[in-house]
Amino acid sequence: MKALVYHGDHNIALEEKPKPTILKPTDVILKVLKTTICGTDLGIYKGKNPEIADGRILGHEGVGLIEEVGESVRQFKKGDKVLISCITSCGSCEYCKKQLYSHCKDGGWILGYMIDGVQAEYVRIPHADNSLYKIPASIDDEVAVLLSDILPTGHEIGVQYGNVKPGDAIAIVGAGPVGMSVLLTSQFYSPSIIIMIDMDENRLNLAKELGATHTINSGTENVVESIKNIVGDGVDVAIEAVGIPATWDICQQIVKPGAHIANVGVHGVKVDFEIEKLWIKNLTITTGLVNTNTTPMLIKAVSANRFDLKKLITHHYKLDEIEQAYQTFLNGAKEKALKIIISNS
Amino acid sequence: MKALVYHGDHNIALEEKPKPTILKPTDVILKVLKTTICGTDLGIYKGKNPEIADGRILGHEGVGLIEEVGESVRQFKKGDKVLISCITSCGSCEYCKKQLYSHCKDGGWILGYMIDGVQAEYVRIPHADNSLYKIPASIDDEVAVLLSDILPTGHEIGVQYGNVKPGDAIAIVGAGPVGMSVLLTSQFYSPSIIIMIDMDENRLNLAKELGATHTINSGTENVVESIKNIVGDGVDVAIEAVGIPATWDICQQIVKPGAHIANVGVHGVKVDFEIEKLWIKNLTITTGLVNTNTTPMLIKAVSANRFDLKKLITHHYKLDEIEQAYQTFLNGAKEKALKIIISNS
Repeated sequence: MKALVYHGDHNIALEEKPKPTILKPTDVILKVLKTTICGTDLGIYKGKNPEIADGRILGHEGVGLIEEVGESVRQFKKGDKVLISCITSCGSCEYCKKQLYSHCKDGGWILGYMIDGVQAEYVRIPHADNSLYKIPASIDDEVAVLLSDILPTGHEIGVQYGNVKPGDAIAIVGAGPVGMSVLLTSQFYSPSIIIMIDMDENRLNLAKELGATHTINSGTENVVESIKNIVGDGVDVAIEAVGIPATWDICQQIVKPGAHIANVGVHGVKVDFEIEKLWIKNLTITTGLVNTNTTPMLIKAVSANRFDLKKLITHHYKLDEIEQAYQTFLNGAKEKALKIIISNS
Repeated sequence: MKALVYHGDHNIALEEKPKPTILKPTDVILKVLKTTICGTDLGIYKGKNPEIADGRILGHEGVGLIEEVGESVRQFKKGDKVLISCITSCGSCEYCKKQLYSHCKDGGWILGYMIDGVQAEYVRIPHADNSLYKIPASIDDEVAVLLSDILPTGHEIGVQYGNVKPGDAIAIVGAGPVGMSVLLTSQFYSPSIIIMIDMDENRLNLAKELGATHTINSGTENVVESIKNIVGDGVDVAIEAVGIPATWDICQQIVKPGAHIANVGVHGVKVDFEIEKLWIKNLTITTGLVNTNTTPMLIKAVSANRFDLKKLITHHYKLDEIEQAYQTFLNGAKEKALKIIISNS
């Protein structure tokens, strides 16, 4: 089969690989229908994860058709169309029993990282009963791909960890796919002010269409001053959706006493925590990898047309063109790219 | 009257000052019976708070007898013996209505900081109805002093913000008065493992007496290795009760996925937040100044003899000797000092 294979820093290639087979009774084999490229995949391409084995197939998001099920799989059968969760969970370890599926002792984020992933014609999914979801016919295959990772990540690690409540003033730092997912899912909880902060006008305009009440261009405005003009004391919740020191700094500067800072961004270097100013502010700061424990709820919300998710899909490629798709996504804002759908046929 | 007065960096003196008078109808004037010195007062002495006015009377903890009440005070009358809360709260501003009394717009921590404090023969307490508590006869005056600040600080900012739960493994970094208060109040919630970490053997021995299941001497042991030997993956809750980068670092190194870090320490410089390792760990980190919203509960617990608080009181001085008391407290561990009681007669 064809698959996008990692060979180290800045070295990926579409190659022929053997079709996967059932290894354990809890596995299924899927024919991949749609997949996408995550910011994390770009990080891998750029060499941020030297721990990944040479020859690994990348990708952890997608929709597929079940081809074959292991003998102990109970929830799925051949022919089912399913959502592939970016998190694999055994369902029975200490962390799974606390719904910390992200830290499953035989799973977590392993697809396209510790085991072969989804940017291929076929993929093996371990612990299938806990790691796949049936997709209702009402949800378009391409939209469903956004449910693998970005929508639960934005909702759980941004909105839920940030404790967004009715009436809150919230700020989202970073209008990429995950920041947009925070924007959409925050509206479940009726904040009164939603401020999107980014350097790209195109993304800020889309944020307005998707529900932001205010936008701040951090490339041209003084963010702290602009926040003060909108909300005085600061925001109730600041959500970091980039993963660099500059965006963390914005968050620690714009929060009021008693506020939450929810870090969603994947960071490569440490940050300065201004605890000499913030020890007294009664803040709650959270970090985390998505657990996907709200995926079933999000499937219902998407099925009920709660979101205008198609606006997050900006580009389409065939699996044959996936190397070109990576180049487009690498130029993200310049290419006006948010999510790129890769189709297998 | 006699009062301990601040005149800038390393310059305090016991002096004659005018007796305070009622300024607003919500004030009371107290005759101070007992007071103490806080780590924060030492910070002021060392010049950490140049914002404090020359001539300010220090101190924010104590027990007193009501001498005079303002005309709108409803909860207290002349002759009542009361606990002075370190936090003054108006009860009606935005933050008071969220029980964030520490950020009261006409209060918070102001005693011995923005207004004259308790290390004196008399003190004026604003917003008395919300900032004083009647003391049951069953509570000793000296023990009551510990309820002004250290016990609620340990309980609210350490134990409650840290979300200590039955069965948890918790680590307390710093066995000073606040760390000991965390140790005592954590036992309300039945953690299974309580590890006290400090460099002073005398304090570690007392921690064992007060309920620590394990102690680690960070001056002689590798804390991370010792924690691993006790709890494997790390602790569920790490509580920072010192306020320096080294103790913050211990906390960020010893927590398991899904854990809480509750910062109680007052910091003077920024710290390195190793977010490049911790973004993925689903942590909750909190900071805060005490709200004293659990003071009424703590009064009941102390009244019911839940704690062996007398063991935290190591030294006694008269108000006349308060300059000497500061010197003793400055040599904290060496003098085997935890809380020093200053009596007015």
